[in-house]
Amino acid sequence: MSDFGTLESRVRRKSLLKKVVKAEDTIEHFKSGMNLMWSGFTPAGYPKEVPIALADHVEKNNLQGKLKFNLFIGASVGAETEDRWATLDMIDRRWPYQTGKNIAKGINEGRIRMGDKHLGLFAQDAGYGFYTENGRYDIGIIEVSAINEDCGLALTTSCGIVAETINLCDKIIIEVNTGQPSFEGMHDIFMQYKPPRRQPFLITKADDRIGTSYVPCDPDKIVAVVESKRRDKGRAFSEMDDTSEAIADHILDFFAHEVKMGRLPENLLPLQSGVGSIANAVVGGLAKGPFSNLTVYTEVLQDTMLDLFDSGKLNCASACSLSLSEDPGFPRFFDNWEKYFDKIVLRPLSISNAPEPIRRLGCIAMNTPVEFDMYAHANSTLVGGTRMINGLGGSGDFLRNGYLKIMHTPSVRPTKTDPLGITCVVPKAPHIDHTEHDLDCVVTEQGLADLRGLAPKDRALKIINTCAHPEYRPILLDYFERAKKECLSKGIGHEPQLFDRCFKMQQNLATNGTMRIKNWDINIDLCE
Amino acid sequence: MSDFGTLESRVRRKSLLKKVVKAEDTIEHFKSGMNLMWSGFTPAGYPKEVPIALADHVEKNNLQGKLKFNLFIGASVGAETEDRWATLDMIDRRWPYQTGKNIAKGINEGRIRMGDKHLGLFAQDAGYGFYTENGRYDIGIIEVSAINEDCGLALTTSCGIVAETINLCDKIIIEVNTGQPSFEGMHDIFMQYKPPRRQPFLITKADDRIGTSYVPCDPDKIVAVVESKRRDKGRAFSEMDDTSEAIADHILDFFAHEVKMGRLPENLLPLQSGVGSIANAVVGGLAKGPFSNLTVYTEVLQDTMLDLFDSGKLNCASACSLSLSEDPGFPRFFDNWEKYFDKIVLRPLSISNAPEPIRRLGCIAMNTPVEFDMYAHANSTLVGGTRMINGLGGSGDFLRNGYLKIMHTPSVRPTKTDPLGITCVVPKAPHIDHTEHDLDCVVTEQGLADLRGLAPKDRALKIINTCAHPEYRPILLDYFERAKKECLSKGIGHEPQLFDRCFKMQQNLATNGTMRIKNWDINIDLCE
Repeated sequence: MSDFGTLESRVRRKSLLKKVVKAEDTIEHFKSGMNLMWSGFTPAGYPKEVPIALADHVEKNNLQGKLKFNLFIGASVGAETEDRWATLDMIDRRWPYQTGKNIAKGINEGRIRMGDKHLGLFAQDAGYGFYTENGRYDIGIIEVSAINEDCGLALTTSCGIVAETINLCDKIIIEVNTGQPSFEGMHDIFMQYKPPRRQPFLITKADDRIGTSYVPCDPDKIVAVVESKRRDKGRAFSEMDDTSEAIADHILDFFAHEVKMGRLPENLLPLQSGVGSIANAVVGGLAKGPFSNLTVYTEVLQDTMLDLFDSGKLNCASACSLSLSEDPGFPRFFDNWEKYFDKIVLRPLSISNAPEPIRRLGCIAMNTPVEFDMYAHANSTLVGGTRMINGLGGSGDFLRNGYLKIMHTPSVRPTKTDPLGITCVVPKAPHIDHTEHDLDCVVTEQGLADLRGLAPKDRALKIINTCAHPEYRPILLDYFERAKKECLSKGIGHEPQLFDRCFKMQQNLATNGTMRIKNWDINIDLCE
Repeated sequence: MSDFGTLESRVRRKSLLKKVVKAEDTIEHFKSGMNLMWSGFTPAGYPKEVPIALADHVEKNNLQGKLKFNLFIGASVGAETEDRWATLDMIDRRWPYQTGKNIAKGINEGRIRMGDKHLGLFAQDAGYGFYTENGRYDIGIIEVSAINEDCGLALTTSCGIVAETINLCDKIIIEVNTGQPSFEGMHDIFMQYKPPRRQPFLITKADDRIGTSYVPCDPDKIVAVVESKRRDKGRAFSEMDDTSEAIADHILDFFAHEVKMGRLPENLLPLQSGVGSIANAVVGGLAKGPFSNLTVYTEVLQDTMLDLFDSGKLNCASACSLSLSEDPGFPRFFDNWEKYFDKIVLRPLSISNAPEPIRRLGCIAMNTPVEFDMYAHANSTLVGGTRMINGLGGSGDFLRNGYLKIMHTPSVRPTKTDPLGITCVVPKAPHIDHTEHDLDCVVTEQGLADLRGLAPKDRALKIINTCAHPEYRPILLDYFERAKKECLSKGIGHEPQLFDRCFKMQQNLATNGTMRIKNWDINIDLCE
């Protein structure tokens, strides 16, 4: 592993070398109830040695539920850290996004208090002192590639909320990752004042650099430096399937149409793409497609972006994190370092997800919801309206501020008993994260509904007829016609709904395992 | 009326004088089905002579329903124009905000197709060509104070979407308003490119000027110039009452607390304040309160702002419109012109409501919803979830992007039969315009709930116990406890709801005229 340089070569602020300790020696700094901030974003660049040492300590000494922390991190981190912490009952509050079966269980059973927020707003508001009593945090744990002579931190695979962390935390623990190459030079850190002294972010192209490569850190705050050789446990690649390829085809056709109409330039506009199989299919389609000189301004770069670089069609990419798979993602990246390195800028969350550059650059925002309704309200977070999956993420940052705001999902999902048991196009979304005022297009494998300029009732017809699965189309049309008739006759029909049965499909799913109801009459058994 | 200068003195582009016609002579330009853009914003600075002449023409010739237009205007305009047009069945599509009994009736009975959008986004997206087939509009009608030698338009009491209008419309009709002083010099017009060529808005203080005083206009597009002496039919002043004063007191106490905690500077941050009696009470409270050197960055300036100027506590104000009452607002303004003029900047809607300056300046956003729910989702537009009042306006532009995001409402409103018939704190909002991810504080006369850092279930308890009317508190707590018990036991309880009865209060209101239900059991008569 010495290929990547020794700890001594990475820590160029020499006075810090006397603070080098083993991970388990940092445990003394932690007390139950503390507010912690970590580096890391959508699992990349998060601390590993110290969180794992703490978990081992709790497990070994039976301290489950006795050593609990409030965790504030840019987004999710690896399952070996936060999800294991959840299993060991080590988390009280968790902001603003998470991934893992056990942490989700803790949240939905009421043991973990998760707060969900637009990621860009979280980063900013944390800096404003909004999430703790006095706006301060006890300990920050930060993974770095290197520390320069001025105590500037060169980060690793993400920037997250590190710029805020070094200001808001009383103590800082550093993990220097010597198990992989140094990412020094990939980051663009712009430190912000609070209002009324905030300044513009002068980004006018996706790869513009407006700051420095290092996060300046007060060396006196650093209480420990720990060497780490553990790599990110990145997301596995989501395979494409026919459905996601059909969705990607609709989106690429739409882009071609917009170019033809003069509403998009020939190289499109900076792309923001979410995670998962549809996002992969879109990026895969672009790698084979007619558009070149593309740029990306997004929050997470995944494996498929390497394909897009390799296709020669992507000029540059800006993100908050480089979240590749352990294999083959990172090995492929490291083997072709010089091909990718200069084309990538990693930015703090407060800038990657800020409305200002997203609007100015005119990003094309694309994200997958749980479901959307016939008026284009979308649910991104709570399955069935109450059960948290991961969180809102940056979907709202991009969907509110993009040039084109697109949500894509399969039209149906299977349940245990019905392959068409769940329709992702519903009369009314049981939880709403993005409103009808935010979305331009919704897409399923059935088609793309361009909603720009449509009033609610026109929108409903377009969505049902274009996006709903044929099995659900008549059921949804029936609901819409009934709602329209009842509301218009009373003069209350701008956006018709029937509040005694708008969630009947969801109730039927909970009771009978399918949303395929026979009709919308009340008080009769509606299950197929 | 000659006090204010002749038409000749106002039209300094002399070649335009030969295009001066009477309003009725412009009728020939209009054909049914045309897309029209007007100046005007929340009724200020809108064209009057031409729209009234068209209405007279329709009325006189029984052309109701035969001469219909699609109306795109920055926001609402005076009732003598759009509301009369609605009465005469002259409107097909209407974007993105309106005011008037008859236009609302047309919308809710399905005759007028209204599209509702964040105002800041509407201005921008119209400029991108999103609302008509080819992105073009037929005729723009613009009220101006004057036209300079270079055919620069000096606007009147609002900027609205004029900068977009002069580019997007094939023909322009100008109304020169000589019935009031010229507002030349009050506006700051910054013309934007489309992405990828958009540039930063370099506004770092509320009254920074970054553009020119005039909207540059191609003289060849101008097909008619009409003189107008009609003044804006501005909003009447909303009287304060005990409820709104109690709400204002809570908000001012909160500001004092935030200053003490170091989260707000002593002169606060730029204020954005909605319309109505609560907004008036807040501004009235500020005029008497301890804070000075205040600034305002908002969309509409109303009569009470004159009080705040007169108190000596307001240094400057930026808005999209100066929307004073016909009496005493405008006469008071005109009589003290030199006292106010230099302290006011009027900006295009695409800048007054843009996320970029709102976030950078750190606005304190305050708006009144129809209702909010126990998780802090708010309904701003659709009474009962389906009936349109006015529209979203700029509430989302400011609430998503402000430094502090506050919604305020009385805790209850009366119905015909029950003085406490409507609770404005409900289990689930029947329509959602602002999500839980957007609001920091909700306020009623009962108290202010500071929600920053709270997870959903903690938020629900805080909102119910702080904001709900005592009459409704036990009913809401009962619902919350039932929902919590049922959802947590199933492991689906991040944000508990009961989908078979979450709208029971609203259904009871529709059926029985009150939201005071006896309990949450299903299938029993719940009316008091």
